[in-house]
Amino acid sequence: MSNPAHRCLRIHPTDNVAIVVNPGGLPAGTKLEDGLTLTEDIPQGHKVALAPLAAGDAVRRYGVVIGNAVDALPAGSWVNEQRLTLPAAASLKQCARGPASAVDPTPIHGHTFQGYRNPDGSVGTRNILAISTTVQCVAGVVDHAVQRIRRELLPRFPNVDDVVALEHSYGCGIAIDVPDAAIPIRTLRNLARNPNFGGEVMVVSLGCEKLQPTRLLGPGKIPIRAVSTHRPPPDADGVDVVCLQDESHVGFESMIDSIMVTAQAHLSRLNQRHRETCPASALVVGVQCGGSDAFSGITANPAVGVMSDLLVAAGATVLFSETTEVRDAVAQLVTRAATTQVADDIVNQLAWYDAYLARGGADRSANTTPGNKRGGLANIVEKAMGSVAKSGSAPILGVLAPGESLRDKGIERGLVFAATPASDFICGTLQLAAGMNLHVFTTGRGTPYGLAQCPVVKVATRTDLARRWHDLMDWNAGRILDEGLTLQQAGEELFRLLLEVASGKRTWAEHWKLSNELVLFDPAPVT
Amino acid sequence: MSNPAHRCLRIHPTDNVAIVVNPGGLPAGTKLEDGLTLTEDIPQGHKVALAPLAAGDAVRRYGVVIGNAVDALPAGSWVNEQRLTLPAAASLKQCARGPASAVDPTPIHGHTFQGYRNPDGSVGTRNILAISTTVQCVAGVVDHAVQRIRRELLPRFPNVDDVVALEHSYGCGIAIDVPDAAIPIRTLRNLARNPNFGGEVMVVSLGCEKLQPTRLLGPGKIPIRAVSTHRPPPDADGVDVVCLQDESHVGFESMIDSIMVTAQAHLSRLNQRHRETCPASALVVGVQCGGSDAFSGITANPAVGVMSDLLVAAGATVLFSETTEVRDAVAQLVTRAATTQVADDIVNQLAWYDAYLARGGADRSANTTPGNKRGGLANIVEKAMGSVAKSGSAPILGVLAPGESLRDKGIERGLVFAATPASDFICGTLQLAAGMNLHVFTTGRGTPYGLAQCPVVKVATRTDLARRWHDLMDWNAGRILDEGLTLQQAGEELFRLLLEVASGKRTWAEHWKLSNELVLFDPAPVT
Repeated sequence: MSNPAHRCLRIHPTDNVAIVVNPGGLPAGTKLEDGLTLTEDIPQGHKVALAPLAAGDAVRRYGVVIGNAVDALPAGSWVNEQRLTLPAAASLKQCARGPASAVDPTPIHGHTFQGYRNPDGSVGTRNILAISTTVQCVAGVVDHAVQRIRRELLPRFPNVDDVVALEHSYGCGIAIDVPDAAIPIRTLRNLARNPNFGGEVMVVSLGCEKLQPTRLLGPGKIPIRAVSTHRPPPDADGVDVVCLQDESHVGFESMIDSIMVTAQAHLSRLNQRHRETCPASALVVGVQCGGSDAFSGITANPAVGVMSDLLVAAGATVLFSETTEVRDAVAQLVTRAATTQVADDIVNQLAWYDAYLARGGADRSANTTPGNKRGGLANIVEKAMGSVAKSGSAPILGVLAPGESLRDKGIERGLVFAATPASDFICGTLQLAAGMNLHVFTTGRGTPYGLAQCPVVKVATRTDLARRWHDLMDWNAGRILDEGLTLQQAGEELFRLLLEVASGKRTWAEHWKLSNELVLFDPAPVT
Repeated sequence: MSNPAHRCLRIHPTDNVAIVVNPGGLPAGTKLEDGLTLTEDIPQGHKVALAPLAAGDAVRRYGVVIGNAVDALPAGSWVNEQRLTLPAAASLKQCARGPASAVDPTPIHGHTFQGYRNPDGSVGTRNILAISTTVQCVAGVVDHAVQRIRRELLPRFPNVDDVVALEHSYGCGIAIDVPDAAIPIRTLRNLARNPNFGGEVMVVSLGCEKLQPTRLLGPGKIPIRAVSTHRPPPDADGVDVVCLQDESHVGFESMIDSIMVTAQAHLSRLNQRHRETCPASALVVGVQCGGSDAFSGITANPAVGVMSDLLVAAGATVLFSETTEVRDAVAQLVTRAATTQVADDIVNQLAWYDAYLARGGADRSANTTPGNKRGGLANIVEKAMGSVAKSGSAPILGVLAPGESLRDKGIERGLVFAATPASDFICGTLQLAAGMNLHVFTTGRGTPYGLAQCPVVKVATRTDLARRWHDLMDWNAGRILDEGLTLQQAGEELFRLLLEVASGKRTWAEHWKLSNELVLFDPAPVT
């Protein structure tokens, strides 16, 4: 006798597999509502064959072929990663680049948040002093200074949320003149200009490094050397640079003094800012997933997709990324491109990444993790179809290459493909460089991911994870399965939560002060 | 009239350039002791032509050709990087691989230090609890735990120097199955076994990452899952692993509790250790230079070379590295190899790196920095000849590929070429993985470099730097120029300083708690 508590979920009417919903999975012999009996134990999140499969038969989920059966399987079988072949990657040369099929969402109005307006028109969701660094050599000194700034200066500037060092392993010991070096350099330049830093750029440099301050800052910016006792007033194009090898520095503490004096001037300007009512269109939301499972594509990611459509409807900007996780959705992306130029840009970014992986002896299939597979994701096609759901259904208005910023490309709203590796930390770093002021991160297996530069709203795909990680997950998309929340309702709740977090509500990662290091994408060799 | 205070230094009798010694350089018109008059201003550390040069003439320093004159230059001219061509790299195929020409230094006896003996026979110079991590995802949680361990546990274990997290950007979002992935994986495995960590390995894992604990730990090691309330006693092959995604963890603080309970068991074992008299042969000294100038090859590096020969004579192990900085000294290295196998291993490492750089569109010339050039180093040949001086004159007994350890290769003493990139932080990380328990770092431009895992003795090449950075530089090799200290005396002083630091004397970096992050060498692509 079938038991309605035994649940399997088919995503698309043409699918011939469904996903086991029950925590703990379902045992062999379980009879499902439609009369199908499981022929073996199937873990939660994994796939059951809804019909008999012959060897070579296409296995469909999300309405697309995610692989072919290796051997014949009766209905009720467990369709796992051992029993599926990986389809070849879609050709990028033969992508249809016809007129856009996606329709602009109907605009919505009146949604606001309390943000920090910046001189360049962007808006911060936090008010942070960022200290840029040209090279890792200075990190020990900068860390020491940041601790003292937090202890001695920050209490005097209560409107400033934090001071963070933008540290990284780039800057020296690298091949700075090869073409690929443009990626880490522009990433660092654009990181310094993230909206959450209020336009206050200051740099700590060693002096002899390859990435000189002028090269970090780019054309038109003039480094102004700071000294401990006297600092010339910054002019419009000047940027304060503390250079540790400057001859004016005698002893370690004079270096620390220079950094603190410089930081104090920036803190006092940041402290004069206050939150103002800003339209939701000022949000730049980066969406990402990590530690995905089979529910990522059923609950959290589609809910984020609805949220993304709402943001776009409100005039905001949404960045979706993770190149290897959208590679298999290229047909969908190209038809959603607003213009043929955007379609070409998407294809070019995917092709560049194919070549980058091939140069290192890898391809897109290197993406999936042991946890993905334990969670029910058989291969990168199945993972990609779930991952791309975060982008919703809006037209794609623009494309950023790794490390590029919205500002440099003149993009002011809408859905944007920010091409980045799927590595959580590299993706987050590149989305920060793009101009992200709010981050949404979905996870099925669970990750304590956080960034010091930007609030991260973490969304659990399953109630079990949300329950166990009750003080790490900010929102539970498992309610879509457990409480009958519709995707529309879920997306609207998330949208409202974003406006609260943008206005200052602290995320769990902020509560515990959990943050991960920035990681640059550097495809060039080290020396 | 010539002034003996105006000093230029010729390194080798066949050289046709000399180096300006005077701080501030020497002005045009300066008459040197040998009657030569400078035709233009020459900065300190830069080269003066001792004889007229025709276009195309070889320019010799260290007795080797460091380049050819671009145009004709009169005697007394400034020979800078604009006026020199870069010679082609020596062919690796035609290297002479004859019998070793280097002679074992005469053994010296009786030198000891106070160290921590480890179960595997190695000796620590510090007594540190290291927490290994499989993936950056756990870093925020581990950082939080480390702060609490330092605050709440460490005061109860006074014989333990510190607790450090071995954090990195590897572990997920990477192509873990390509051949090059072996490098970062073995690096992390060997880092955990550094002699300064007392054989106490503990790991924090997320759960779903690509670098699973079994893969990090390698064959024969059994991960033992730690829980907050109960922990089975570790057996000989067991390694404590705290896995954040374990279902036993409910809430953030249960993760922290697990880490702290596990750490406490390791701290209590480490705390039972005490310093004992150990022979100098237990030292494993990694030598490195960074922020080099023209004096690096005259003062600090040759002094370190004498120190290196003394260490080898005392039966210790010396690691020299920085592949692009020894590439142009291949002829010297091959003739110093103790066996043809070692010579072949050296050539293979250099050839591998040539190919790695070429794959990324670079070559060895990408190594030199703006600071090197300002400091007088015209190109990588000149830099390499100064850099390789750190290796002294002993025979080369072995070669480590990046990330390999002395233990795995069965090397117990002598001079070893540990092939690493020249990037300071990658080199330091790989030398730690090799088994380094003491680090010597020379600098001409100045760097506050430090590692949390191992003491770093920093050596200044010039008195001016040593004076200004009086509380960052541990030893001043500028005394070789200013006080007439011989290289032998300098090497002996450094050798004695090493024994003191190995015995617990704190370096300046330790005094200020300055440390840089570990940086892995990962030639494989990210995904």
